[in-house]
Amino acid sequence: MSLNFRVVLVEPLYQGNVGSVARAMKNFGFTDLALVNPCPLEGEARAMSSHARDVLEGATITNSIQEAVVGANLLIGTTGITGSKFDEHIRIPAFVPRELKKNLEGYSGTIALLFGREDKGFMKEELCMMDMILTIPTSEIYPVMNLSHAVAVVLYELSGVEAGETPLADAFDTKLLMEHFSQLLKDIEYPAHKKDKTELMLKRIFGRARLIPREVQTLRGVLRRIQRCMVSNKKI
Amino acid sequence: MSLNFRVVLVEPLYQGNVGSVARAMKNFGFTDLALVNPCPLEGEARAMSSHARDVLEGATITNSIQEAVVGANLLIGTTGITGSKFDEHIRIPAFVPRELKKNLEGYSGTIALLFGREDKGFMKEELCMMDMILTIPTSEIYPVMNLSHAVAVVLYELSGVEAGETPLADAFDTKLLMEHFSQLLKDIEYPAHKKDKTELMLKRIFGRARLIPREVQTLRGVLRRIQRCMVSNKKI
Repeated sequence: MSLNFRVVLVEPLYQGNVGSVARAMKNFGFTDLALVNPCPLEGEARAMSSHARDVLEGATITNSIQEAVVGANLLIGTTGITGSKFDEHIRIPAFVPRELKKNLEGYSGTIALLFGREDKGFMKEELCMMDMILTIPTSEIYPVMNLSHAVAVVLYELSGVEAGETPLADAFDTKLLMEHFSQLLKDIEYPAHKKDKTELMLKRIFGRARLIPREVQTLRGVLRRIQRCMVSNKKI
Repeated sequence: MSLNFRVVLVEPLYQGNVGSVARAMKNFGFTDLALVNPCPLEGEARAMSSHARDVLEGATITNSIQEAVVGANLLIGTTGITGSKFDEHIRIPAFVPRELKKNLEGYSGTIALLFGREDKGFMKEELCMMDMILTIPTSEIYPVMNLSHAVAVVLYELSGVEAGETPLADAFDTKLLMEHFSQLLKDIEYPAHKKDKTELMLKRIFGRARLIPREVQTLRGVLRRIQRCMVSNKKI
């Protein structure tokens, strides 16, 4: 049993940053890098990766976040803009690296650590995919970190995490649970303008609760039973 | 009462790194930067500093480490090469950033955080100036971090340190104490080949003990009394 961390850079703009990220990864013992629609990677990326050229060249390149996070149990999105500033539901609650480390101790699974574009970060719909939001506590005067610095700080913190025997739920099963819940909201004619926010809230609650496989199955059983009761009541 | 941190880059070779360091400093709320014989700082340094151009332009430029650390109570040298590898007395014991943070909690004073050259790190005689050695725990496979990444990780850890009322001893007084001790070693005809190592050992013990002003004065009083007794015994 172990915890595997995958660094996912979403549409990085500067190849020097991609190389620097590869170096920081190897510095802290990580090798699993995925790049979603990256900028062209040429000499500067290789130069900045220094002795981590193997990590850079071993990176998986994909066209979508979905492909980049295949096999991951949890998606963690790192953002410098937290909910406290914009009061956006999709950005809260945000965890700091130390809290994330504590939350993952004792678990086993694959964690995707996602980092957004250097200029715009994540799109709203991308943030909605995340199970947890991570933010590095920075100065209010200048909170925007260089991409590779952010990766270095997060990996520095996570490099000491102690895995354990508790398995994280399979992402596919969790997705089915969320779809099931979404269907239930439709069944109960939950107000459409609240539906997305409520679903996201539940996703984040499950994300920070770190569901185990048995819990997902039990919850789906509960949803099935609710749905069955509603159908039979309608018949009556 | 507060803890002030000064980042000192010793002979940095690449202006991009200097700019990146300025940015990482501002990200974590630090502004006191000193550069010892830096490379020329031009457009690339400004570009990499991004919105921390004020930190970059406000940097003190000196010709020596001594000038760069004026007013600092403690000198902390960061190195990726620790004693465990080379068994060099001057590199042990090395503290990790989390330990340094804990060690400084409750104190007040100015701490100089020194970072060596990108290629060669610190010279031996420079390491001997340090009160403490700091090292970032990295992978054995590729331990050499980018300079600005190392600064970012150290400042990330130290940004949350809680200062207190306990004053750190003045560096000048501590220097007088060390010179006094050195004189005593001569007085007792301490073997010359052991003298430097023993002095360094004591410097490091005092460094990690974080002496307060009263302790330095008391220790000097003890040394004076020892010397007086030795003189009077000789006379007898």
